[in-house]
Order: sequence, then structure tokens, then C-alpha cells
Amino acid sequence: MSSSWTSFGGDLHLDLTERRAAGAGLRAALEDALREAVQDGRLAPGTRLPSSRALGEDLGIARNTVVEAYGQLTAEGWLTSRQGSGTTVAQRTTPGPGRRTARPAAEHRTVRHDLMAGRPDLSLFPRTAWLAAARRALATAPHEALGYGDPLGRIELRQALTDYLARVRGVRTDPDHLLICTGVAQGLGLLCAALRERGAHALAVEEYGLPPQHDVARAAGLATVPLPLDGAGARVDRLDARCGAVLLTPAHQFPTGAPLAADRRAAAVRWAREQDRYVVEDDYDGEFRYDRQPVGAMQALDPERVVYAGTAAKSLAPGLRLAWLALPDALVEPVARLKSLADTMSPVFDQLTLAELITSGTYDRHVRRCRLHYRRRRDRLVAALAEHAPHVRVTGIAAGLHAVLQLPPGSTPEAELLARAGAAGLAVNGLSWHLADRSAPAPDAAPALVIGYATPPEHAFQAALDALCELLRER
Amino acid sequence: MSSSWTSFGGDLHLDLTERRAAGAGLRAALEDALREAVQDGRLAPGTRLPSSRALGEDLGIARNTVVEAYGQLTAEGWLTSRQGSGTTVAQRTTPGPGRRTARPAAEHRTVRHDLMAGRPDLSLFPRTAWLAAARRALATAPHEALGYGDPLGRIELRQALTDYLARVRGVRTDPDHLLICTGVAQGLGLLCAALRERGAHALAVEEYGLPPQHDVARAAGLATVPLPLDGAGARVDRLDARCGAVLLTPAHQFPTGAPLAADRRAAAVRWAREQDRYVVEDDYDGEFRYDRQPVGAMQALDPERVVYAGTAAKSLAPGLRLAWLALPDALVEPVARLKSLADTMSPVFDQLTLAELITSGTYDRHVRRCRLHYRRRRDRLVAALAEHAPHVRVTGIAAGLHAVLQLPPGSTPEAELLARAGAAGLAVNGLSWHLADRSAPAPDAAPALVIGYATPPEHAFQAALDALCELLRER
Repeated sequence: MSSSWTSFGGDLHLDLTERRAAGAGLRAALEDALREAVQDGRLAPGTRLPSSRALGEDLGIARNTVVEAYGQLTAEGWLTSRQGSGTTVAQRTTPGPGRRTARPAAEHRTVRHDLMAGRPDLSLFPRTAWLAAARRALATAPHEALGYGDPLGRIELRQALTDYLARVRGVRTDPDHLLICTGVAQGLGLLCAALRERGAHALAVEEYGLPPQHDVARAAGLATVPLPLDGAGARVDRLDARCGAVLLTPAHQFPTGAPLAADRRAAAVRWAREQDRYVVEDDYDGEFRYDRQPVGAMQALDPERVVYAGTAAKSLAPGLRLAWLALPDALVEPVARLKSLADTMSPVFDQLTLAELITSGTYDRHVRRCRLHYRRRRDRLVAALAEHAPHVRVTGIAAGLHAVLQLPPGSTPEAELLARAGAAGLAVNGLSWHLADRSAPAPDAAPALVIGYATPPEHAFQAALDALCELLRER
Repeated sequence: MSSSWTSFGGDLHLDLTERRAAGAGLRAALEDALREAVQDGRLAPGTRLPSSRALGEDLGIARNTVVEAYGQLTAEGWLTSRQGSGTTVAQRTTPGPGRRTARPAAEHRTVRHDLMAGRPDLSLFPRTAWLAAARRALATAPHEALGYGDPLGRIELRQALTDYLARVRGVRTDPDHLLICTGVAQGLGLLCAALRERGAHALAVEEYGLPPQHDVARAAGLATVPLPLDGAGARVDRLDARCGAVLLTPAHQFPTGAPLAADRRAAAVRWAREQDRYVVEDDYDGEFRYDRQPVGAMQALDPERVVYAGTAAKSLAPGLRLAWLALPDALVEPVARLKSLADTMSPVFDQLTLAELITSGTYDRHVRRCRLHYRRRRDRLVAALAEHAPHVRVTGIAAGLHAVLQLPPGSTPEAELLARAGAAGLAVNGLSWHLADRSAPAPDAAPALVIGYATPPEHAFQAALDALCELLRER
């Protein structure tokens, strides 16, 4: 099964025997042989190919097989086909000579042990269940689901989340007030832009928080105003008129770990009502509470004053970029309009899949499995530190995927501790990295580390724990 | 297999027999029965449930099955479980009483025939191939792929697109200069914001275009400056210094349909070089050309001055929100930074799936199939109009998924034609809807309609065509 051409401006030997022996179908073998010949230059641009009839006869295969192979390679751009002038090898534009590299590779030490907070154990992602749910979701989705749709997101997911959030977090909303976004950061950016439109100049934030969120607020034109934290949570009595809203983590302050006290919750909502302002509740890990009943969402106190923000980044994976806002009525139109301008709407397939995962109960089972897994991690962390570094106080561990390790005053300074960690290949953040205003660290602050104990895959957790204990061992 | 309790503050009959007969597993049947009892109020909040041992004995099933069912329902929030006080029915927050509807339902006539431009036939989406590719992609993706990653997007897709775009569109780029975004609209918004940071005040656009794109530019702080169109495309000689860039559709002007002439391409690139400006090439339907060789991407003329924007919205589905920018070196850092602020990065699963679809050759085959399909549609449109409305001139049909129907001067005015179309349930746009500056329509413009012949599913196409011919029949 071979053919040699000399009559077409080149000398080409085309042998399908080997490819056929390797299991390729006839057409695939022919496509492959032709493609390779074009790629390696044996068939030069402009070369006219034999007619499908001639090549078919030559190779002893059906003419249609050749027609189909020519068609595929034409579709791929290797060949061109013109009525009347037959099939020729295409003129190709080759990529230009070496372009500059846009970004120099980041200089970083090798991370051997990753205990950075804010990330789940990605090896827990339920790939099989996800794919099964995607199959079910795509099998039943109407064609219109694949087109342009509501900037709020797919109705299937908004309906499923309405029920789920009411049941699990006590959130009071409905599908018309839920917006699906690509991550809480996007949702926060849209909210801040909507507040800016309403005339707000600033967003109040907790003294310690997530600096990238503060960057998002500032990019939307809002200054960030830090609120001090004490044992009962954020000092919401310090809220001032410049702020269009306050961003809080009521269930589990990020990163220090305490829940916001009931009277503080009530006071924040009262402020929002009286001043025509909003509370933004970042419920980033509300599904992960270990030692007592979940603290319900603050949003239930007043759905017209509290924006609830939730995410699948911790329960499933950050790479999904799936998050949601439960919005007060007055913010639905402006936020949906800004979402529409930003990216029309969120991608639909993952939305449909998550809706299926929730309504089938698979999501609940998965969250429960993760909760057990992380709780065991937390217990191991606490036990290891009690044994190897008893001078360290572990706080914020009733919930979530991270802990704060408080060192006694006078211990090794935080910066030095982090340098040592880096040298040992241990990635962690110091508490001071989380300061909303890093220009003004508390001068007397004792060193503290924020430990994401969920981050490493299971097989790497013990070694990370050992490295951490070694770092904190008293010398 | 049933149990009745009277000793737990309520009278509950729990019967698993029927559920078991319907094929449910033991544990699932029990979960289901308990869940239903809580939902319909037979098990009131606060009710203490029997111990797992007692209920197991009662039902004649293993105690562990009861433990697991209680665990699942506790995870779902229906039950609560406290050390020492057993399992009780949870207190639930029910959604608040009827909230206002955020958005009144849009008033619109029933669309019976949809010929709006800019959308593909969604029934062509290769669901089976997509799911198969998703399975292969997810089976091989490393765990880290599910986490936070490069704002440019997944390397697998950037690599696949580099090769694909070079082969099919002649684009010269590499993975370090490609950014994956959630739709061309997002990419354009990020670009405009980056240009604004560089001091630009305006974006030049084609006289006729896509008004939502103009809204995106204005939201990013740029004025839009329309360039007149003539037979050779946009009058790029009219570009002025206010404009940081010009947005063009060189392969197939949207919506009028002509390619941008070679000398105009060269002139636009020259302007960008000399003035330190950029060209944004929106290659929205570059894969769909029917009558002659594809017009290669203009980006190849100067990858440092032309930003190439491509999308899977026409070749696959808008709902994917998958698009890409090939960026000049100088714009990679600012655009990636803005992408990171906007939404960290695009969702990963669809990126991995598209990469797999491209590298396996499935994408090429799919595009070829669509091209044949749309070409047949176009031929039917042209033939039907030639027969039933020979006074209508059909233009812009060498490529793409839409055509412009030009009516002779003095025909029924466009607004009246559209009103008639609406009354007949036929959704189309008039050409004037596409004006960049709708406040200044050409006073002598003859009526014209923009027809998206790809939009309806196959079974609905003939009826849509009939309705269109009926509308345009001379009276």
C-alpha cells in the first residue's frame, strides 16, 4: 500500500503499511502520512497533489477515502483546494523568529512544603463525580443553554443554590437575587464598581484580611479603610460615612479565625440600614466548621442590607472560578449590568454541572468528606505543635482550612522566621502579610504565622508538618 | 421494613419498602424517607431522633447504615448531632416572605423565527465529543491545574492555540503572548483599560459594528470614534491622534461583510508603528470562509502592533465564554495584571477541554462540518431571495454566519420593515442598529437588514427563510 509521485512537482513516497500495522484506519493513515510529508517539507508549498481518483488507484483504496483525507487536511490548513485547479499544498505563514519573552520567569525558591492558606487539598476534587454530573447536565441542557443568556447566570444553578444556601447557611434569597460570578474577587469588583456609581468613596475592611481583595476594591476606585479587630471581631462601631459598605468575614474572620459576635452583627446591619449602606459578607469557608453548630449567615438578618458572597473555591477547586452573590434588590440591576459589561455572563457548563452536583446530593456528600478530612488534618496539626512546639498558641481552628500560630512576645521576629521557612522550602505567610494597611504594623505585635493545613495533598502533609515543627522548635 | 416512633416527641411512620421496591439502596431509602419527613414537617425542628441502634433494630438494618444516613442528613443541614444529646431535627431558617422581583420580565413579542446575527446554530455543538475530550483532559490534568494559576490561562490551551492559529489563520505568536479570556468582550475591556492607563482617550471603531463592544470601550473610559467605511473597508487614513488603538474586523467586516483591502491593512499598521498605537483585530468568524482562500490574519503583518482577538463563540458556543488575545510584548504585563484583578484567571476545565479538542484534530473536523452546514444555509438564503425577492441585493456572503440584505432606495423604510418583521415573529436587526454613532444615521441610507442565517436550528431554518421572503416580497 504505497505510492510514489514524480509527476506532481516532487518526488514523494507515501507508505501506509507501517501506520496500518500500528492500528490506524485507512483514512487516518493517509491523513497522517500526508500531514507528515507537508510538515517536514517533502511536500513543498504550492505542490499540486494527484487527483483523488489517481491516488486512490495508486494506493488501491477507495477514491472517497482520499477525498475525505484531502478534505480534512484542507480543513486543517495544510492543503488548499480550488475548483478546477485541484488540490495543492498550502502556503503557510510560519511563526516569526524568537519573540522576546514577555515575563521573566519569577525568581522563587523551590517550595517543598506548601502551607499557604486559602487553598483546598486539590487531590480531593471529585473528578469522577464531576464528569458524571457534567454528562448528566449536558445530556439534558436545552440548546439555548449554550447561547448568550442572563448575566445573572444559569437559572438551574441559581435555583439549586437558593435551596442549598437556605438549608446549609440560612441565607434568604431567590434566583432573581443571585448572581453567578467567576470567583468572589470578580463579585467584589462588580460590587465595588456599583457602590462607586452610587457615590461611595471607600470600603471598610477588617484590619487583617486578604490583600488581593483590597487591590480589587482600589482598582474599582474605592479607598480601603481598616477596622480594628478585637476578641468579638471587627469594631463596627468605628464605621464612618465615607464607606459605602463594609467587607466582613463573620463566620470565621480571615485570617484570625474568630466569629463575629452577635451584637456586632446586629450593629453592622443597623449601620447599613440607618446610613443607606451595605454589608458584604464573605462566607469563604462557611461549610467547614468542626467543633460546634455552624454559625448561620449574617445575611439572614437583613437580605436588603447584606450582600452574601459564597464560592466553590474551597469546597471544590479555585480553578472552577465559580462563586455567587446573593444581592439586595437595589443592587441586582447595577451589578448585573456591570457583569454584562465585564464578560456578558459566566461560562455555562460548569454552572450546569454544579447545579446537577448539588441537586443530586453529591455535593453534600463531598463537602462532608472534605470536612472530615480537614478536621483530621487540623487535629494532627494541633497535636504535633502541642508535642514539638508547646510555646506556640494555635488559634482560629474551630472552622476553616487554616490556623494562626501565635508565638510568645520576644520570639524570633516574624521576618526572620519566614526567611528560615523559605530556606527550608516551607511556604507560609506571616500574619502581618494580611494587614490591610501594611505601612502601619502594630509595633508590639508578636510574631504569628498563618498555616493553610488543607493545602498539601495527603501524602505530603506529614512532611510539611514535620518541617513546620522543626521551624518552630524552641532553640 | 418500617418503624413507628411515638417516644420521640412525635408520631412518625417510616416505611422503606416502597423505596426499596423502586430500586433504592437501603441507606438511600432511609435518607430519603427521613429527608421527606423533615421537609414536609412530620418531623418538626427540635425533634429528637431514635438512637442509631434503636432505629436499626426497629427497621431490621445494620446500625452503621443508620449512622451513615444520619451523617448525610446532618451534612445536608436537616439534622443536627451533638455529643451526648443525640440527633435532632435542625432548626431551619426558611426563606423570607415573597421578595420583590428584581427585574420586571422583559416585554417582548414572541420570537418564532430567529435570524439575529452573531450566533451559531447551537444544535451543532458536539456534545459527545466535548464530553469525551473533557474526560480525557481531566484524566490527565495534574492536581495543580485545579488551583490558582497563571492569569494568562492554562499552558495546554495556549500551546494548542499557538499552533492552531499559526496553521489556520497565519497568526504569529507564542504561549507567553496569548491570554485566555471569558469572551472577546472581556478581552476588549481589558485592552481598553490598559490603553487608558497608557494615556489613551479614545478607540477608533468602524462606522458599522457591534454596539455592545462600543459600550465596553466606553465603560473602560475610552470615547469611540467612528471611521467611515467604503468598498475597501475602513478609512484608516482618518485615524487621529486621540485614538490609542483602532478596532477592526479585517477578515470580514462586521456586519457589512467586505474584507479590509491590503493597502488599508498596511496603512493601519504603519499608523500604529509611527504613532505608537495599536490595531485590535477582531477575527470573530475567521474560520468561516466559503468562496475563496481564507484571508490571513492581519496580525502577521506586525505582532508587536496588532492585537489578535479570536473566539470559540461561533465555532462552538457563546456559552463557553472562551476567547483569546495574541498580545504584543508591551501589552502582556498590563493586560495580564488587569485580568488578574478582574477575575484572577479564566476557569480551567473548559480550557483544558478545548486544548484536547484542538490537539486531537476533533476541533478541525467540527469546524469543517459547520462550514459546510453554514455554506448550505447561505446558498439556500441566496436562492430563496433570488426567487422571491429579486430586488434585494445580498452582500457580505463570502464568509461568516450572516448576510446584509440591501433594499433599493425608496423601499419601505427600515423601521417599518422591522415593525412588520416583529409582528410576524421574525427577529432580525436593521443595519442602522449597528451604527457606531446612532445619533447620526446617514439621511439617504437605503434600508438594509442584517440576517444571521446560522442562528436557527436546522428544523426551523426553512420556516424562518419563508418568513423572511414573505416580509421582503414586493407588494
